[in-house]
Amino acid sequence: MERHHFEGELQTLKNRLLNMGALVEERVHRAIQALMERNLGAAEEIARTDQEVNELQIEIDERCLRLFALQQPMASDLRLITAAMKINSDLERIGDQAVNIAEQAVRVLAHPPLKPIIDLPRMAGIAERMTRESLDAFVRKDATLARAILARDDEVDELKDHVFRVLLTYMMADPGTIERALGLILVSRHLERIADHATNIAEDVIFVVEAKDVRHHHEEVG
Amino acid sequence: MERHHFEGELQTLKNRLLNMGALVEERVHRAIQALMERNLGAAEEIARTDQEVNELQIEIDERCLRLFALQQPMASDLRLITAAMKINSDLERIGDQAVNIAEQAVRVLAHPPLKPIIDLPRMAGIAERMTRESLDAFVRKDATLARAILARDDEVDELKDHVFRVLLTYMMADPGTIERALGLILVSRHLERIADHATNIAEDVIFVVEAKDVRHHHEEVG
Repeated sequence: MERHHFEGELQTLKNRLLNMGALVEERVHRAIQALMERNLGAAEEIARTDQEVNELQIEIDERCLRLFALQQPMASDLRLITAAMKINSDLERIGDQAVNIAEQAVRVLAHPPLKPIIDLPRMAGIAERMTRESLDAFVRKDATLARAILARDDEVDELKDHVFRVLLTYMMADPGTIERALGLILVSRHLERIADHATNIAEDVIFVVEAKDVRHHHEEVG
Repeated sequence: MERHHFEGELQTLKNRLLNMGALVEERVHRAIQALMERNLGAAEEIARTDQEVNELQIEIDERCLRLFALQQPMASDLRLITAAMKINSDLERIGDQAVNIAEQAVRVLAHPPLKPIIDLPRMAGIAERMTRESLDAFVRKDATLARAILARDDEVDELKDHVFRVLLTYMMADPGTIERALGLILVSRHLERIADHATNIAEDVIFVVEAKDVRHHHEEVG
């Protein structure tokens, strides 16, 4: 394969990753929206329909394998393609979390409303933005943006701990709220995992740009 | 790099993945044991020490990149090396789950004992065995064993649902058990995720052996 053709294929790969990112981000958003607006039908739909995400994941993986196979790539291309494979896998798992959130929403909506937990949409907003920006950082090879994303993971963890404490108090005060509160605690864990996946993506970006493995060295990040 | 040398490097890569698998499996086992035997010190130690897992992950990733870079690999080698990278990432995440379980154990052990939940060590046993056998299947290129692993994921899901129902009953009956029961529910979720990672590995094995993507087609598995 000519270099020119290779570059074109690489560009298509990046575009498909952006499509995948937009798709899973939207699904997370709709799952949380269904929960907050008590829209059972919407929650059930998200829980049922992850076929598109799965197909896109397989297509992207195949593109990566083709790029590996069709040309002896340079070291920097190798890093880029292996990062793309990992990012693809993280995006698919974010898609799984949208399904998990929607499934919990279906359970929670079987009960009367609990006082709204506004930290959940806040967590979701941060996690969605982290996902979007980690992909932007990948496409633009922007290590500075990637590092800013790593720093935001702590914010999500703090919100998760806060949600946990509030819901625990509800459960202790009124056992009738246990099932609902438990569902919301699990939703917050799923959002935390989405932020973790976005963090993985940001780390892959830094690896691609700086050829440096930043995993397990968060303490060095400002 | 000569073919002979390449084969030797590939063998080392497989051995290191086996080391990684044994390490994370042992850590999961010790975390659950610490919880069941109410050994706070052991739980704190597991929660604190995942440095070895992280270092091994980085070493294995570097081996994979070197194998990609040093030779124009054949299509079957490409599948093998990309699978090794994915397996490495799944193993590291199993290691993360051992830490998560140990952290929950530390919380749970702050309270008096609840009636022992024997389904948790049972789930852990299955998840550990799935991890071990998925790596055996990888090293031996055994798609039959890999398929048998996929089938066992449902067993873990059923145990998880059962643990959830039992603990929910406890919480409803006595709000004084909420914090402990919640910790144990989260432990069961972490074990479920370990089984999911082992399932991912088994799918990668089938992909390597049969050059066929079985993800998202579980219904075809006997």
